[in-house]
Amino acid sequence: MTTTAAAPDHPLLGKHREVLDEARAALAARSWFSRYPESPSPRVYGESAAPDGLAAYTAHLGSTYAALSDQPSDGTLVGSEVSPYGPELRVAYPHLDVDAALAAARAAIPAWRDAGPQLRAAVCLEIVDAINRRGFEMAHAVMHTSGQPFVMAFQAGGPHAQDRAVEAVVAGLVEQERVPSSVVWEKPARDAPIRMVKDYRLVPRGVSLVIGCNTFPTWNAYPGIFASLVTGNPVVVKPHPRAVLPLAITVDVARTVLRDNGFDPALVQLAPEADGEGLAKTLAERPEVAIIDYTGGPRFGEWLEREAASRGALVYTEKAGVNTVVVDSVDDLRGTLGNLAFSLTLYSGQMCTTPQNVYVPGDGVETDEGHLSFGEFGERLAGAIRRLTDDDAEAVELLGATVNEQVRTNAAQLGELALRGGGEIVLEPREVTHPAYPDAVVRAPGLLALDASAEEVYTTECFGPVTFLIRTSSTRQSLSRFVETVRQHGAMTAAVYSTSQEVLAAARDAAADAGVALSENLTGPVFVNQTAAFSDFHGTGANPAANAAYTDAAFVANRFRVVTSRRHA
Amino acid sequence: MTTTAAAPDHPLLGKHREVLDEARAALAARSWFSRYPESPSPRVYGESAAPDGLAAYTAHLGSTYAALSDQPSDGTLVGSEVSPYGPELRVAYPHLDVDAALAAARAAIPAWRDAGPQLRAAVCLEIVDAINRRGFEMAHAVMHTSGQPFVMAFQAGGPHAQDRAVEAVVAGLVEQERVPSSVVWEKPARDAPIRMVKDYRLVPRGVSLVIGCNTFPTWNAYPGIFASLVTGNPVVVKPHPRAVLPLAITVDVARTVLRDNGFDPALVQLAPEADGEGLAKTLAERPEVAIIDYTGGPRFGEWLEREAASRGALVYTEKAGVNTVVVDSVDDLRGTLGNLAFSLTLYSGQMCTTPQNVYVPGDGVETDEGHLSFGEFGERLAGAIRRLTDDDAEAVELLGATVNEQVRTNAAQLGELALRGGGEIVLEPREVTHPAYPDAVVRAPGLLALDASAEEVYTTECFGPVTFLIRTSSTRQSLSRFVETVRQHGAMTAAVYSTSQEVLAAARDAAADAGVALSENLTGPVFVNQTAAFSDFHGTGANPAANAAYTDAAFVANRFRVVTSRRHA
Repeated sequence: MTTTAAAPDHPLLGKHREVLDEARAALAARSWFSRYPESPSPRVYGESAAPDGLAAYTAHLGSTYAALSDQPSDGTLVGSEVSPYGPELRVAYPHLDVDAALAAARAAIPAWRDAGPQLRAAVCLEIVDAINRRGFEMAHAVMHTSGQPFVMAFQAGGPHAQDRAVEAVVAGLVEQERVPSSVVWEKPARDAPIRMVKDYRLVPRGVSLVIGCNTFPTWNAYPGIFASLVTGNPVVVKPHPRAVLPLAITVDVARTVLRDNGFDPALVQLAPEADGEGLAKTLAERPEVAIIDYTGGPRFGEWLEREAASRGALVYTEKAGVNTVVVDSVDDLRGTLGNLAFSLTLYSGQMCTTPQNVYVPGDGVETDEGHLSFGEFGERLAGAIRRLTDDDAEAVELLGATVNEQVRTNAAQLGELALRGGGEIVLEPREVTHPAYPDAVVRAPGLLALDASAEEVYTTECFGPVTFLIRTSSTRQSLSRFVETVRQHGAMTAAVYSTSQEVLAAARDAAADAGVALSENLTGPVFVNQTAAFSDFHGTGANPAANAAYTDAAFVANRFRVVTSRRHA
Repeated sequence: MTTTAAAPDHPLLGKHREVLDEARAALAARSWFSRYPESPSPRVYGESAAPDGLAAYTAHLGSTYAALSDQPSDGTLVGSEVSPYGPELRVAYPHLDVDAALAAARAAIPAWRDAGPQLRAAVCLEIVDAINRRGFEMAHAVMHTSGQPFVMAFQAGGPHAQDRAVEAVVAGLVEQERVPSSVVWEKPARDAPIRMVKDYRLVPRGVSLVIGCNTFPTWNAYPGIFASLVTGNPVVVKPHPRAVLPLAITVDVARTVLRDNGFDPALVQLAPEADGEGLAKTLAERPEVAIIDYTGGPRFGEWLEREAASRGALVYTEKAGVNTVVVDSVDDLRGTLGNLAFSLTLYSGQMCTTPQNVYVPGDGVETDEGHLSFGEFGERLAGAIRRLTDDDAEAVELLGATVNEQVRTNAAQLGELALRGGGEIVLEPREVTHPAYPDAVVRAPGLLALDASAEEVYTTECFGPVTFLIRTSSTRQSLSRFVETVRQHGAMTAAVYSTSQEVLAAARDAAADAGVALSENLTGPVFVNQTAAFSDFHGTGANPAANAAYTDAAFVANRFRVVTSRRHA
């Protein structure tokens, strides 16, 4: 009934034992841990990795993804991906026969359940390792579906996503290992003690549905995929219709590793859909689906939280919110502006963690370069963004391309928002020309100054290269606006800049009240919109932006259940 | 930000450190652990404990529960408890002002949150210890609200409930301690490593609502109350209108301990209601209520799972199901019959864990006393029940009294069920006269033999002293009926009797598929309807009878969230 009893000699157990032990220790200590180098340098991944990866990516274009043709299919092909950089991908994916796919997933449960947590974890590690070996191919796939710049696509879509996968595997493994396989229970009694043998068997919930997003197809999908898989649940991956390829490669690799190691590939299936098909809803309503992981817009996320949760499915969502920066005072203005400008610029503000609302007191900010008025602070921030983005060729390596029309519209409507909110544009979102991809729509960040009374404008998420500089009466008002807006509208991140210990303590209390993680006085190479696997939680589950966090115990503990069998010893 | 930083010298920390350490170890090992002696003997609790407890109970009768009058009240009194043994309790309870009570609960959060998990756990232990000191008073209160016999009311309503409380405290504490208070994170970099200090602050969900039941007012409420309290959430306890007193005493004790130790008594409040008021629904719909623990009928439980869960509240339910015994073959017929008869008799089958459906092959059962036909097995079981219950005065000490009209109706309708299902009554539920309480309605268990085709009868929960002996074509059919009925209708318990290792293995697989805990070949002083804190999970959360288990990690891990604050080191 224990794993090792099930397959004590499986070679993958020994192969991955050491890394699992290291990762276990890192997770408990929340210390730095990374299994996969984040640098795309040839010195790390080899001279041929980059050209081979590009060739592998290019080979997908205009083709049918044949490696997935052994999935139960209804015979149709779907696929309409267009790179945010311009080109159509023209990859065709076999469309699932949903009934047959769910039946296949359920049929795969008993053997996977009985393999036990250690072997499942080892198989998962083998899958993630194999995904890592396709890192450059994946980088191009992520770049040309999300619009991320190449290096970011390599890192966030590759090693960083893979580290989040390993984190989920280890978190799920540790959780399962907390329950002993078997114990002898002995209760003192008048004559002899009463002795019972109790076996604890871990059983999965059922089929797990992972609904991917457009901007981070792998990074946001891997925690759910691997948390479910390691706890014994088969996974159906429903990618965003504009970001299928990265998850197709992922599922392809997973199925290959499963098959090669004697497991049923139906444990991981890809459910691509035609644009507008609504397959996520169809799948979420199926009684076989017991777990749903979702990243995406609030509307469908709230539908899932309401409807799928009400029929008993576990629903883990990451939606959106109004990420916040409170600026009070700084002792390193240059570092502060550089750090903030980078956070706003990276991927044109299209991260769910990019700051949107920057609260600055109306009477300005004390800095190591003297007092700056509200207007001067805005000008200095605009200057920092300009310096970072004024060269088109360099800028696109940070900005990437805009992912969809909504983002472009948000950028284009800054003037209208300024009118509506009685604000003033401090920095126009500049149109940037991509030297290699003339059809890419690239925008540098824009800044709009608003008064704190213009709630109507800044309490809605305005995804993309738009930041609001909000003039408050004081830092005290900044903090109370911060708490109120996050409680009501949610946030994935928050930051504070202050030289005052009292203000920092108040900001920590505000963050606790709002239920959002806080970055304090970031000036170096760590950015508010980035979290590190094994140490930083992504999301808190304590505000409306997300009901779960990558990866805490609550994210994994309910994905399996314990069935006891007991008998007299 | 850590507890001990908050109050490193609080005397309760030292007072309860040792027992918390022992309980932690027991929980991890799932070994036997009990803090409170289960024997009501004067040698254990002292000569005066029993008479003092009775006097304390008697003093409540006909009185207003004045100790709760400092709760925010709307000025009205409610209370209509009638003992299943006959007498009216005539205790009047101050009715909450719901708005004021929820506001008071929320206002109590910050200080309780900042006390930290260790101090909260110590305060919870202090509360449970104080509840234990009122054990005899509680036993009478439980007996005269639930109808349990006295010794059972003492044990299940007292020490066993208290052990489940300690279990929940420790499970919640351990879960919180898994997150370090603060770490230094160090990422290797080209020049110097990047170093960040990260503080992890635990924050509660919000107000926790615990909805009690009639039959086990304390045992089923304590896990939710203490799991929420130790994780920082204030608790509103809504007792069943016919079982208020045990939870009134509980809340009274909790508030006294909180007050005496400098904490806000609004952390635990009692919400008694008038019969038919529907206060549970009112409270469950309040946005302040973030967590709901419920024990009771499936209809309201399903409403909570659907409606409260859909607005984002965490909902933990324990409802009902069709508990199952599969009889294949026995090597200790006497022990088997004695064990089964006791399980069916205890509290007249009014435990959510009492077996209802006993599957027996139509071609009978091999035993150490030779082959028994289906009919003979039924007769022998009926005989064992008769022997256990034929003396009225002794029988009532096992049976207790029937708790409500539905139970009495279920017993009275056995003939009608026999007609409907084409079955045969093997044992009539005998009317027992209570020697001390002539108004008590007491029933010994009845047995109805049915064919496996009479699904319509046996797939509905028939709460109380009614057991179905179901004739199957084979043990194989018994097991498949077991899996199907539990998957569809749920179960809290299951048992199997077999001398065959193959059958036992198949039964374990069936239990895993059905998602219910299994007791194998119980013949001694352990019964299928009893679970031990720290070792046995009560419920699995893997079938429709309950969506949660006492007490696994999933029961506690989501009751708090983690808010990080990080800065350059």
